[in-house]
Formats: sequence, C-alpha cells, structure tokens
Amino acid sequence: MPVVSHKGKAMPESPIRKLAPFAEKAVKEGKHIFHLNIGQPDIKTPIEALHAIRNNNIEVLAYSHSAGFESFRKKLAGYYAKHDITISSDDILVTTGGSEALIFTMGSITDPGDEIIVPEPFYANYYSFSTQSNIKVIPVISKLEDGFALPKISEFEKLISEKTKAILICNPGNPTGYLYSKEEIKQLAALAKKYDLFLISDEVYREFVYDDSQHYSILQERTLDDHAIIVDSVSKRYSMCGARIGCLVSKNKSVIETAMKFAQARLSPPTIAQIASEAALEAPESYYKETVKKYKERRDTLITELNKIEGVKVATPKGAFYCIAELPVKDADHFAQWMLDKFDLNNQTVMLAPASGFYSSPDQGKNQVRIAYVLNTKDLKKSAEIIKFALKKYNNQ
Amino acid sequence: MPVVSHKGKAMPESPIRKLAPFAEKAVKEGKHIFHLNIGQPDIKTPIEALHAIRNNNIEVLAYSHSAGFESFRKKLAGYYAKHDITISSDDILVTTGGSEALIFTMGSITDPGDEIIVPEPFYANYYSFSTQSNIKVIPVISKLEDGFALPKISEFEKLISEKTKAILICNPGNPTGYLYSKEEIKQLAALAKKYDLFLISDEVYREFVYDDSQHYSILQERTLDDHAIIVDSVSKRYSMCGARIGCLVSKNKSVIETAMKFAQARLSPPTIAQIASEAALEAPESYYKETVKKYKERRDTLITELNKIEGVKVATPKGAFYCIAELPVKDADHFAQWMLDKFDLNNQTVMLAPASGFYSSPDQGKNQVRIAYVLNTKDLKKSAEIIKFALKKYNNQ
Ligand SMILES: Cc1ncc(COP(=O)(O)O)c(C=O)c1O
Ligand SMILES: Cc1ncc(COP(=O)(O)O)c(C=O)c1O
Repeated sequence: MPVVSHKGKAMPESPIRKLAPFAEKAVKEGKHIFHLNIGQPDIKTPIEALHAIRNNNIEVLAYSHSAGFESFRKKLAGYYAKHDITISSDDILVTTGGSEALIFTMGSITDPGDEIIVPEPFYANYYSFSTQSNIKVIPVISKLEDGFALPKISEFEKLISEKTKAILICNPGNPTGYLYSKEEIKQLAALAKKYDLFLISDEVYREFVYDDSQHYSILQERTLDDHAIIVDSVSKRYSMCGARIGCLVSKNKSVIETAMKFAQARLSPPTIAQIASEAALEAPESYYKETVKKYKERRDTLITELNKIEGVKVATPKGAFYCIAELPVKDADHFAQWMLDKFDLNNQTVMLAPASGFYSSPDQGKNQVRIAYVLNTKDLKKSAEIIKFALKKYNNQ
Repeated sequence: MPVVSHKGKAMPESPIRKLAPFAEKAVKEGKHIFHLNIGQPDIKTPIEALHAIRNNNIEVLAYSHSAGFESFRKKLAGYYAKHDITISSDDILVTTGGSEALIFTMGSITDPGDEIIVPEPFYANYYSFSTQSNIKVIPVISKLEDGFALPKISEFEKLISEKTKAILICNPGNPTGYLYSKEEIKQLAALAKKYDLFLISDEVYREFVYDDSQHYSILQERTLDDHAIIVDSVSKRYSMCGARIGCLVSKNKSVIETAMKFAQARLSPPTIAQIASEAALEAPESYYKETVKKYKERRDTLITELNKIEGVKVATPKGAFYCIAELPVKDADHFAQWMLDKFDLNNQTVMLAPASGFYSSPDQGKNQVRIAYVLNTKDLKKSAEIIKFALKKYNNQ
C-alpha cells in the first residue's frame, strides 16, 4: 500500500479535534455544551451582504479574475483608506479566506527549510501552513504576566539567522487578545528593516479593539512599504466565516506579482462570496459599532466572572475575541476532556480549547486554555459558573 | 528590500497571461475577440443551484465542517453510485475547487523533491501546483499522431525511481480531449500496484464524453482501492466555475485522514457554494444530456472546420471540451500574439492558448495550440474562418 508523506504525518491535528469525540459523546448523553472553543461568532452577517446573495441574477456562475473582482478590490482600497492605510487596488489580492492569504504569503517568500519568527502563543494554523510550506515556525515566547505584550526585540534578534525570512504577528491577537501599541509596531518595523525581513501582520480582527485603544496597522508605518504584508479576512469582521474571502495586501510589487502566480494556479476566489463581501462594505458604521459594543460587554462579563474563580489568572484582552486563562490544574488538555466526558452542572458543560495547541515550544501553556467570547453575556456567565464548579470538583477528586 | 522565494520565481506564469496585454490592446482598438483560450463555459448553471443561492435564509454565514457539509457528501456518494463508483461519504473531502483537491493530494503524498509522472501535454496548473509543493512533474510524452492515447507502459517504467510517488492522469483530458479506455486504465492500475504508487485521476470532465464512449473511472477498478485518488469538481459539470467547489475521493483511509489535516488548517470550503453544489445534484438527467449534446455539436463543427484548413492537424477529442491543433507555423506563441496584436477579419479576431504552456519538456508543442470549444457553433465557425485567414496572411508575410 502506498503511504502518505512525511509532511502529511507532520501536519498537526487540531487540538480541538482531539476533543471532538468527547463532545459528540456528551451531546449523545443529552448534555448541552457551551462552545467557548471556537472563533465562530453568533453575530448576524450584515443584511447588505445577505441581500446581495439573495438578489443576484447570475445565470452562469463564472470564474472571477484570479486577483478578485476589480470592483471589489477598488472598494477594499476605499475601506483601507478609512483606516489610514493608503494603498491602491493593485496592492490587493483577493484570497479564499485569510487562510489562503497566509498560504500564498509563505509560498511567495519562503523556500523549504526557511524560518519565520512568531510570538507565541499563536494562531495554531500558522504551524499547519508552515508545515504545508515545508518551513519552520520559530517561536518567541510572550507571557501571560506581561499581558502577552511584544517580547523584547533582543529576544527576536537572538533567533534571526540566514534562514529567517519574516516575522509574523497577529494584531490584535488570536489567542491572546493582545493589541500591539504603535510603539511596538515601530520597534518591529525597525527590526524588519535592519535585517531586511518581511513583516507579516495578520489583521483579521482589526475592528475588534476595546477601551478606546487604537489599532495601528503595519501599513500605517509608511517606511515599511517594501517589507509589509497584511493578511486580512471578512470572516470575523462581518461574521461571514463561511464566505471564504480574505486578502493579501502589500506595496511590494514583487510580492504581489509572485502571489498572483499562486492565485492564477487556483484560478479564482469564490464569486458569490466576493459579491457578498463587496456588499458587506456598504454596512453602516453602526454595524461595526454595535458588534464591538457587544464584544466589549462580553469581554467585560467574561473577565469579571473568570477573575472571581479561585486560582484562575487571565490577561484582559484589548482586542479580538479571545483570552488565554491560566487554570489551577496541571494539564488543561485533560481538564478540557474531563469536562466533556465526566462532568456536568445541571446537564450543561463547557468546551474549552487547551492552549497547548497554540504553542510550538514543548511544555508551554500546559495549564492554560483559550476562551472565545462568542456567546451572549448570559451564556458566558453560565459558562464561567460551570468552569468554577468543574474546577472545584476536578481538584477535589 | 527583502526578496521573494526561489519557489516564487519558479512558479510558472500562465501562458495565456502573457497574451493578456495584447488582448486588452485589441479590445481597446475596438476588435471583437472570440475566446477559444479558456475553459470557461457559456452554458447556464442548473436552475436548481441558482435557486438554492437565491432562496437561502441564512443569517450567520458560518464555517462548514472542514470536510464539507455532511448532507452534501452523502448526496455526492449517491452521485458516484450512479457512475458505478461505490464509495461512502467518509471517502469524500469537499475542497475549494478541483484545484484545492490537487494541492491537498500533492501535500498528502509527497515531500520536497518527490516526483509525479504525468502524460504530456497536461493541464498547465499541474506544473504550478507541483512547484508550489516543491515537487517535480516528470512528463511522458503522448503524441498527436496517436490521438494522445496512453503512452506505452514501458515509457512510464523508464521514469519510475525511488522518488516517484504517483502517476497523475486527466480523464477525459484537458488539453487533449483524450478519453482513456478501460483497457488503458487497467494497464495503469497494474503499473500503480506493481510499483506501489498512487494513481491520481483528475475526472472533472467525467460527463463530457462523446460518440457513445464510456468513461471508466479509476475507482471502478476495484482492485485499486488503496492506490486510487480522484480529483473532482462542479466547475465544468454544472458550469459553476465560480462556486469553487470540488472534492478529493479516496478509499485509502490514511490519504483522507492526512488530507483532512490540510482541510482543517484552511477551516472550511465556501458554504453558499456548497449549498448550490448540493442543489445542482438535483438537476435532471436532461441537463447533462443537453449539455453533452451541445458540446458534441460544437466539437463536430470545430473539428470539421479545422480539418478544412490547409496544414492544420487535429486529433478528434473524445471527451472534455478542448482539442490540440497543430498549425502550419513555427511558433504558435508568436502566431497567437500576432492574431491579437496585428490581425483582424472585419474587426474580429480569435484568442488561442499556445500549447507550449501544456508541456514541461522544452521544445514540445511549439506549433500547437489548445482550442476550447466553449462557444456556440456559429461563433466557432466564424472563429475557424478567422484562423484560416489569419494563417494565410501570417504565412504570406
Ligand atoms: C488569527 C487568524 N488568522 C486567520 C484566520 C483565518 O480565517 P479565514 O480563513 O476564515 O479568513 C483566523 C480564523 O480563525 C484567525 O483567527
Ligand atoms: C483538468 C482540470 N483539472 C482541474 C481544474 C480545476 O478546476 P476547479 O478548481 O475550477 O475545480 C481544471 C480547470 O480548468 C481543469 O481543466
């Protein structure tokens, strides 16, 4: 029998997937599960986008341009202008989700064996896409005690080698909720220029910032034009995860030209979803405001409730809709599984994402979980209560 | 300035893209172009699919399961059963177009430096996806004189090495229009088993077969269960290229498990497009019959007209909607460019795909073009007339 590749074997399994059979069992047993484990928002997609899908009069569902519809890219440039990011539609390549923008970026700037430095904990699929691209993620550890702020630049410098091609950040961060300050972005920009590295910024949560903080994009840092690559997506911004529309933005012409070859190979991003995404850009300011208001309330509720639980430590997120919480357990993987498998409070339980999946360094984050606050405040309160009881029972066994 | 990767530089530019500026210029000059250069059908998408898009009542456009909606995969299994292909929904992974199924397949079964043997001329993007995956395409030349029939098995055997992981065929073929016989599939199956290789069959044109020929799928060859991987797509079948829905089918569990890791990393295939593709499966038999009838008429018209042109040789395609034609010119790349740039017949011209882009061997196919018969018979006749006049003028300069 022919066998799969070494690469295929090395591709990580999603840490959440390991819990899936226990979640299925829990559901079969009649338990209700509060899902704090995934970044699938419950927010409604803008009505403008839904109408565009329903009111289309397409007869032949044809390929779009490989870079995406021109009209969409032009409107996207307008969207960025509102965020003080000055680019033209030619600097944008529409991709099949932010996911594909990450794959194209890695393909365009790295060869097998090359390295990308990433503050850890990081979005787990950075590791998958690197494995897929035959390159290595080199982690720099950021700490819960520091609220997951940018590690010292000297820590990055220690890791830079001939093989280093880029630094990749997620701003605001999944799973940390950390929002890099303008000052931190400037430090990273200086570093990228000093060593002639690309600075890739995953800004799919750009709008999700709280407490009057300001998001500072790497493309607002004008000296960085040749070094900056933004990964973006409509998935979270418009609660349109299923559209599979994102983009890659760079003012470096050879990056766009190269990524375009990958884009041509796969022919086209989804057309109906592009039409919907273009329409979503017409959503009123109030859509963003209400969404952010809702997430802020959820964050405040969740953090307040978590802080009431003995032994739980959490860094208050400044953006995105996740936080990392340290639990008074030795093995959060086991605790998360136990909650599904062996525990319930009035027939309800909670599914958490063990944080170990967001670290590539061994033995990091073993007692941490990632919590996505994508549920309403009532359910979040309930969830915190369940976690509290579960911890008590788990630790008294 | 940081530079793009060696891989990025090695990624081929689509041969058609090189012609694009000349096409733009022609349009600006007011010329009408008949596009015989692309596989974008003009056939209408089944009304069932279009209705499903328009009548959805989704409020949150959420991610689907990474393997695709269960209901869709179940119906797909039913579709395959009608084609005498016995599989279960677990053997199917829904992908973002056949393109992604090819990328997942290569990722799952090859490591950098590995090789895949492919009869040449082949779908140009096989080369792009191999470059993207850091592997090599090893061509076996098939000939116009033989109608692009399967090369002798001994020709494949000469090329098999330690690094060979698979043989990849396209059946029926883009760009050749060749349909492999049951006998040829059995020969390939024996070869795959003898050397323990995967046999990958790109069957996105499965329905498009003419003259009462029968398509024989590698998964009808039951002894091949562990070795067979099918790449499939709704793009051409339902004229839904912009949906970006395809699938990877294999009864080899480790292939599906491995490809699933790639699928999880990119989260989900497009949801609305999946709903449309599921609905397309409800299209009546008459939809397929009428589509095939139309293509058969077009093929007959095109081949008859091409055969009337002095010096043109063409292998009558038995399937898909392409043919390779040999022209009485030395450099078909130049001729194709000249037709856009310098020629018109009553302000009309034709865009052809130079066949060189479908060969990886140097100097092959230099005097050949690929013609896609995706226009109505009137336009095809007109196009053939334009080609005839253009050849005369080009050769009399
Ligand atoms: C940080 C981050 N980047 C990228 C993505 C990819 O999202 P998509 O492919 O849906 O745009 C996600 C999804 O959760 C994410 O959290
Ligand atoms: C032979 C072949 N395979 C695969 C594809 C990929 O098509 P899609 O990604 O639209 O399914 C095409 C498209 O033209 C093709 O001709």
